[in-house]
Amino acid sequence: MTDTDLSRALFAPRGVALIGASADPTKNNSRAQRLLQREGFAGRIVPVNPGRAEIMGLPAVADIRDAEGPIDHAFIMVPSAAVLPAIEGCCAIGVKVATIFSAGFAEAGDEGAALQHQIVATARAGGMRLIGPNCLGLLSVPDRLTLTLNAAIEAETLRPGWLGMVSQSGSMMGAVFSRAVARGLDFSRMASVGNECDLGVGELAEMMVEDPHTKAVLLFLETFRDADRLAAAARRAHVLGKHVIAYKLGRSELGRRVALSHTGAMVGGDELAAAFFREHGILRVDTLEALIELPRMILGHRPPRGRRFAAMTATGGGAGMVVDRLGTLGDELIGPPEGVRATLAAKGIVVPDAPLIDLPMGMAGAERYSTVLRELLAADHNEAVVAVLGSNARRAPEKTLENILPAIPAPKPLAVFAAPLAEDLLRQAHERGIAAFREPEACADAVHAYLTWREPRQRDAGLMPDEADAAGRLVAQADGKSLNEVRACEVFAALGIEPPGSVVVSAAEQVGDIAGPVAVKLLSPDILHKTDAGMVRLNIEGKAAIRDTVANLLAAARERFPKARVDGVLVAPMHRGLQEVILGYREDPEVGPMVMLGIGGVMAELKRSFSVRLAPVDVEEALTMIAELPELQLIQGFRGLPKGDVQALARAIRAMSLLATLKDRPVQEAEINPLIIRAEGKGAVAVDGLLALR
Amino acid sequence: MTDTDLSRALFAPRGVALIGASADPTKNNSRAQRLLQREGFAGRIVPVNPGRAEIMGLPAVADIRDAEGPIDHAFIMVPSAAVLPAIEGCCAIGVKVATIFSAGFAEAGDEGAALQHQIVATARAGGMRLIGPNCLGLLSVPDRLTLTLNAAIEAETLRPGWLGMVSQSGSMMGAVFSRAVARGLDFSRMASVGNECDLGVGELAEMMVEDPHTKAVLLFLETFRDADRLAAAARRAHVLGKHVIAYKLGRSELGRRVALSHTGAMVGGDELAAAFFREHGILRVDTLEALIELPRMILGHRPPRGRRFAAMTATGGGAGMVVDRLGTLGDELIGPPEGVRATLAAKGIVVPDAPLIDLPMGMAGAERYSTVLRELLAADHNEAVVAVLGSNARRAPEKTLENILPAIPAPKPLAVFAAPLAEDLLRQAHERGIAAFREPEACADAVHAYLTWREPRQRDAGLMPDEADAAGRLVAQADGKSLNEVRACEVFAALGIEPPGSVVVSAAEQVGDIAGPVAVKLLSPDILHKTDAGMVRLNIEGKAAIRDTVANLLAAARERFPKARVDGVLVAPMHRGLQEVILGYREDPEVGPMVMLGIGGVMAELKRSFSVRLAPVDVEEALTMIAELPELQLIQGFRGLPKGDVQALARAIRAMSLLATLKDRPVQEAEINPLIIRAEGKGAVAVDGLLALR
Repeated sequence: MTDTDLSRALFAPRGVALIGASADPTKNNSRAQRLLQREGFAGRIVPVNPGRAEIMGLPAVADIRDAEGPIDHAFIMVPSAAVLPAIEGCCAIGVKVATIFSAGFAEAGDEGAALQHQIVATARAGGMRLIGPNCLGLLSVPDRLTLTLNAAIEAETLRPGWLGMVSQSGSMMGAVFSRAVARGLDFSRMASVGNECDLGVGELAEMMVEDPHTKAVLLFLETFRDADRLAAAARRAHVLGKHVIAYKLGRSELGRRVALSHTGAMVGGDELAAAFFREHGILRVDTLEALIELPRMILGHRPPRGRRFAAMTATGGGAGMVVDRLGTLGDELIGPPEGVRATLAAKGIVVPDAPLIDLPMGMAGAERYSTVLRELLAADHNEAVVAVLGSNARRAPEKTLENILPAIPAPKPLAVFAAPLAEDLLRQAHERGIAAFREPEACADAVHAYLTWREPRQRDAGLMPDEADAAGRLVAQADGKSLNEVRACEVFAALGIEPPGSVVVSAAEQVGDIAGPVAVKLLSPDILHKTDAGMVRLNIEGKAAIRDTVANLLAAARERFPKARVDGVLVAPMHRGLQEVILGYREDPEVGPMVMLGIGGVMAELKRSFSVRLAPVDVEEALTMIAELPELQLIQGFRGLPKGDVQALARAIRAMSLLATLKDRPVQEAEINPLIIRAEGKGAVAVDGLLALR
Repeated sequence: MTDTDLSRALFAPRGVALIGASADPTKNNSRAQRLLQREGFAGRIVPVNPGRAEIMGLPAVADIRDAEGPIDHAFIMVPSAAVLPAIEGCCAIGVKVATIFSAGFAEAGDEGAALQHQIVATARAGGMRLIGPNCLGLLSVPDRLTLTLNAAIEAETLRPGWLGMVSQSGSMMGAVFSRAVARGLDFSRMASVGNECDLGVGELAEMMVEDPHTKAVLLFLETFRDADRLAAAARRAHVLGKHVIAYKLGRSELGRRVALSHTGAMVGGDELAAAFFREHGILRVDTLEALIELPRMILGHRPPRGRRFAAMTATGGGAGMVVDRLGTLGDELIGPPEGVRATLAAKGIVVPDAPLIDLPMGMAGAERYSTVLRELLAADHNEAVVAVLGSNARRAPEKTLENILPAIPAPKPLAVFAAPLAEDLLRQAHERGIAAFREPEACADAVHAYLTWREPRQRDAGLMPDEADAAGRLVAQADGKSLNEVRACEVFAALGIEPPGSVVVSAAEQVGDIAGPVAVKLLSPDILHKTDAGMVRLNIEGKAAIRDTVANLLAAARERFPKARVDGVLVAPMHRGLQEVILGYREDPEVGPMVMLGIGGVMAELKRSFSVRLAPVDVEEALTMIAELPELQLIQGFRGLPKGDVQALARAIRAMSLLATLKDRPVQEAEINPLIIRAEGKGAVAVDGLLALR
């Protein structure tokens, strides 16, 4: 099935079957048919119910196999045990896609998961795609298709709009729908994905991005199940000048616990989700109101060049609430530069040289307000404008809006916030296509989401070099699930990271001419925590002492761990530098390969200080990771302290991230701990490391 | 004037004069009289306007001196230049208080500040109190007193309620008013304080707390100008079982810049404001909706015992938004313990052992929902309950509320959040006294504000000991604006902090038997940055070497800084310990004396890590400060590292904070840097310090 065929079967099917339809209007299962009929769905509607010959005026069939004519899409509402036969029936008559409302699958435990596995296998064999199970269905308003049991949606008038939505929470589909419609924002397509047994958020988002009616796609996420497809959808949206906007639960460990995502224990958590959104050009909001109001605010606009915004207000306190919050988020309020002030002065408007433009509105000030707003929106010094309204917004909404309208459509995003309650103004603003916020926190959140929005990062450019091939060969030679420190460092060396320069000996005589100081460490896959076990000796100097230590260690191992396999003794130079860091790589179960830079040492465990990116990264991106760790300012000329080789660190980060470019990505996890950064120009050396395969 | 007399003159005056009243209804200045007449103010209303004999049906006088009968309160709306004569007139006829709308005072620059100084002096001499200038006035709804020019308030119906408000932003008075009234929350008293030239937020809050109509006082703050009075008001509110709830701008440096507060550069900033609120039992919110909805949520409730909350929901996604945010704020969701589950099971309701209670509501589930909610509100394991509603909140608001009502009045705070748009439910909930939130962020913010609310800290208990007296005498002996390191450490020693044990010598011969290792440092008030100037030598060992170093340093000082005064040479033992901290004390211009504990060393400048409290603190409170610094876990048994003398550190923090108990608080700033913490039982020693007087 091509993407277009699938999209048509999903959203504009020639016929739909309602498997488990009910004739009782008080039953939830009656809702989809009632809605289809109310909205005037033009295709064939076939209720399937073994106990009924007719439902709500339409002939019903006892079995899906009895349905006549082309049925592209089946909506399955029967108990979980009856789902598999229903799907078999669908496959038999060539149904292309089924949306499964029924619950009792993977979300309900092992038995349900097995059943879910079965229905997926059956559908695949029959060439059919699935949405759900355990979902609230989907709709395509322009096609008058309403395969949903969501009560909130039935309560609304459906008008075709330009907003798409994919939700992992069924109830939030209705909640967002009701809130958006009240703001005059209408939907094109909407889907609840449930357990995502087959079609996931990413693939559905892709179809919405391609839909000509849809200009922005909202995502309500609890986890990532098809991150690659979602990334592709977001990147495609950029090409088409459309927007993907996400609200994701799981900012806190508590949130991850009550949502579906369980990555809490891993490094990254929400930071990794943030990296995913940022790198693929997805806007992320943190408030429900911003999720709904942001599409209108940014419609047709491109990512900003920086984080400077302008603000004008008729009320100091009201603006303070928005600006203060943007300040805590790290965005920068910028006052009008001299040029803008001169332009305004020529029009008789004197604006002081201050970050916030405080402009009592009044009726007399209307033209002045509009002139200043137009100048701010046209000027080059800011990326977005916040306009805060005072009591006039409540007393004279129409007139107040008229002061703003000459500035619309704006050449950059405009966010309006009314400090008093101003329901009429909000409604009228929405009707006129102006993004107006009820709450100051949502206004700030939306502006922040825009200011931190970036073009998708081009991650593949020039990033498939020879080193990765060499490393790939070394990894391929591994015979176990993991590589020991010596082998791991060989892989890292192949990628361009300086190895510790250690040698492995199996007897004291093999030490040769090494004079030290060295660290001496027993190599054994069977002895964990070697330092605690006394199997590591540090700072050994002089040939004789080194030889004695090797002999000693081998003897001690034989005596104390007689059953342990011994791979030899590692003799490694003692490296010194200015700073130790941890460099990590991991195949994240949700978003895929990532690279992590963290501060080494015991403090790192007490105070999380790390930076993450999706892998691979180039050197430039690696430098932005370094900039995120305040501790690393210590080696960048802070207070005259000696400078470290930050460039070498950046190269090492890039090198580590190249593990993501190995064929079939065999590496599950890799870590260098510590990587020692030497003085400027002297490089960085991997002292110890590990590498585990998938 | 007694507090009661003042309060009566302000809010229930026998007569009011409107100085600068206008007969033109399009003029702002006409609003106060129109409102007074509309609301039926029972006292005498005297418009003052030299050009009119009558205004809106009332006889006007040309000069306030011509007003007949007792005028307790004057509302002044004339241009700034005419304010002083108006106040002189008020004083002449015994007006007790004037509220000054007129702008052009301290907020407008030096000239305005001088004028403001004059009006205050004149009023004081005349026994009159002032509100403003540059304020929007005040109202007392039960007294039908509406001395305000706020347009938003004129637009509303005024009904007497139980909410008081004091605002440093005039426009936010109207903005909050309109938003609260729409939620069925009405006000008793409200005041905009403007420049606070005389009566400030604290004193007005005190009067509202004492008002029998008022049960909770909202504060909209940009800065603190009378923190002591505000603290007293908040503490009095606790005694009376009332609530003080604050929204304060200035969480970010940007916010402080656009608000009135300019403490950004100092240690503390918003943390100090947070400490102020916490210590005086003021609830602090971070969202506008929570400011308005929290009073109803906590009305009559006392501070919680901890931060555990329960949550039940009809929609996973909707609850996720609230719970996730509470998680990022550090609050703890707790599922029902076995006892509660058993009680429910006995009633036929099986609730799984999970933190979030997911309970599809439906019509059939109504009684079940209500039963579970009642149990959660009655149970002892949580301090507050969040109830999240799904699509029923929109479709059947009345029925949905009826499921909740049996649980009202609740024995603990209940926060309701409706995931879909549910205007009717919100309105009806408010009518029935249920706190219901439109936005999940505000719901979480309000619950968090409650969970972190504590009884006011008793700061004076047992904290006026002999040491403070001894230290006071030493400070009193100071003849300059600051004490040098030796004198400062003597003061700290008097308070109980171990001094460095250094001696001051004026010649090498005086060194005596000290064997070292020591640090040797020139004492001179004229040489700053002594280390850079080469006037500090470290780690000198042996009598002869020490003597030579002293002689050397004196000679070098004479040669290189011939004009510098030399107070001698400090010979101090080199102290060693497990951790260095900075211990500070400061008289903050906004909130008064504070004590600060920070991590020493260069990283402290890169990554702010400190804890602040209002001073004084006792040892127990000092231990909570220590617990806030992750770095100090390193000396509390983390990973088997040696333990430091945390008790000694806590005693030192308390001792430093006792500077706040000296008579007249002569100390502006004091700092010990570093304070070295030795191993457990070995104490902590002040190595270097300074102390500056006010």
